[in-house]
Amino acid sequence: MSREQEIIEKLRARTPCQLPFGIGIGDDCAVLDLLQARSLVTCDMLMEGVHFNRTLATDPQIGRKALAVSLSDIAAMAGSPVAAFVSLALPERNAVAVADGIMDGILSLAADFGTVVAGGDTNIWAGPLVINVTVIGREHRLGSVLRKGARPGDCVLVTGVLGGSISGHHLDFKPRVHEAVLLADRYGLSSMTDLSDGLASDLQDIADESGVGFLLDRDQIPVSAGARQTSDPIKAALCDGEDFELCFTAPPDVARRMVAEQPLADVSITMIGRAVDAPGIYWREDAGEPTPILWSGFKY
Amino acid sequence: MSREQEIIEKLRARTPCQLPFGIGIGDDCAVLDLLQARSLVTCDMLMEGVHFNRTLATDPQIGRKALAVSLSDIAAMAGSPVAAFVSLALPERNAVAVADGIMDGILSLAADFGTVVAGGDTNIWAGPLVINVTVIGREHRLGSVLRKGARPGDCVLVTGVLGGSISGHHLDFKPRVHEAVLLADRYGLSSMTDLSDGLASDLQDIADESGVGFLLDRDQIPVSAGARQTSDPIKAALCDGEDFELCFTAPPDVARRMVAEQPLADVSITMIGRAVDAPGIYWREDAGEPTPILWSGFKY
Repeated sequence: MSREQEIIEKLRARTPCQLPFGIGIGDDCAVLDLLQARSLVTCDMLMEGVHFNRTLATDPQIGRKALAVSLSDIAAMAGSPVAAFVSLALPERNAVAVADGIMDGILSLAADFGTVVAGGDTNIWAGPLVINVTVIGREHRLGSVLRKGARPGDCVLVTGVLGGSISGHHLDFKPRVHEAVLLADRYGLSSMTDLSDGLASDLQDIADESGVGFLLDRDQIPVSAGARQTSDPIKAALCDGEDFELCFTAPPDVARRMVAEQPLADVSITMIGRAVDAPGIYWREDAGEPTPILWSGFKY
Repeated sequence: MSREQEIIEKLRARTPCQLPFGIGIGDDCAVLDLLQARSLVTCDMLMEGVHFNRTLATDPQIGRKALAVSLSDIAAMAGSPVAAFVSLALPERNAVAVADGIMDGILSLAADFGTVVAGGDTNIWAGPLVINVTVIGREHRLGSVLRKGARPGDCVLVTGVLGGSISGHHLDFKPRVHEAVLLADRYGLSSMTDLSDGLASDLQDIADESGVGFLLDRDQIPVSAGARQTSDPIKAALCDGEDFELCFTAPPDVARRMVAEQPLADVSITMIGRAVDAPGIYWREDAGEPTPILWSGFKY
């Protein structure tokens, strides 16, 4: 367990799961029920040198990404983003121009998703660039799609292609907000998450929360062009972080209908395996026992 | 204008004031109207070496303060806090213990105010400690008390005593959440803010938003014991930041009733002057023209 993970586990243990005011700890977002309205809330803090490198990305790209990762969390629950709040710790050098560039990226993406930048906090310091984005969204009309709903026998599916995000996708990915809403509108999804840490890691979260395991088809993994250029394309597809695609489960008939209909305009849906009544994630083998997949993803 | 102020002004100009979904830019918080419920949202980012010094404050004190400044923003609108979201950039050294200490301070204060820590983001890096707290609250049943409602003739009042916060109050102040709700329940306040940057600066914000000026009584300023020990107690009371008291206006009859009734259990209410139909903040003089107060506060 990483130290981040250790801290997160400790914090989880210290915050109650059943909360007053109808608030519940969701998956990628907290769910708030303030009077009649259920809202989603998610926070992401991006730090220079950890989540981005200012020599490899422009300020608008960094700003765009800071919002995009939170929008992807809203998508992971099939919610719709409403408002974003941006806190900045700006380096002293060219602080005004940096803020301008960051906000270019944020405002442009926010406009694409009908999201309003409604507040924040602006600071300058001698340290590196830090951006915290809080996004508030509306829950899907049928309720949030959580990680915990997968049942043995369900199929597991993903949008798009996986792996090799570092070659560029991690800066220009499109959060799958509209796609998630359409899928939750039209099909009954039993669980969902977004792929931020890599399929192997994020699917394990669904497995843990749902009390199931998964049997994956090696041949069905949609491997990105970037991942194909690595020494181990399948490993890259399962372990590289920052795909920001959707990973979800559905009963077999629903899953087959989704794959046949391919309802998403810009991105394909691929069935990659199924949930089983035993812990762990495995490769299905044509002959013999399943092989455990022991890779773990990049913890974003 | 400081560079922070320059950046804030630029960002304000770039974000629309009239927002969809009933969202409005409030004073200390954004006001969200998600379906039927109006919510308040406020963010504060606290950075090591800027907003706190780890040799002068314990981790629980730093955590407590990080939440308290946001609760004070909710109080400034007469709202009630509901949920807090905590993003951490933790220094590598003793990261787990630091997170634990920070959360001790946050959770203890959150419990005092019926506020739930419902999410966040936890990170470790080689940089200094950064904490971002987002608080979501419910609006007061009569609507938010904003900065823009002061009218010429209104009296201006403050809770508590002012100045010298650096001697300790800035770490242990009690956000005036209950006090603000009681005042908005029982009296008609025309405007309100919390004193984070110092009275001279924060009252100027009410003046600017309301299109009024203020005439203050030098003898009526409630000067703290800490401020009295400085070379210029009145200047400390007006210019020191981080009092986190409430500053508000009300029509004269209401204001006189508040002062006579002293309805707050733990803290006094003092009338310090009145709003006038001319820009600027002045000392009222027994003889002759008012003297302009040219001090500006510490921009927090």
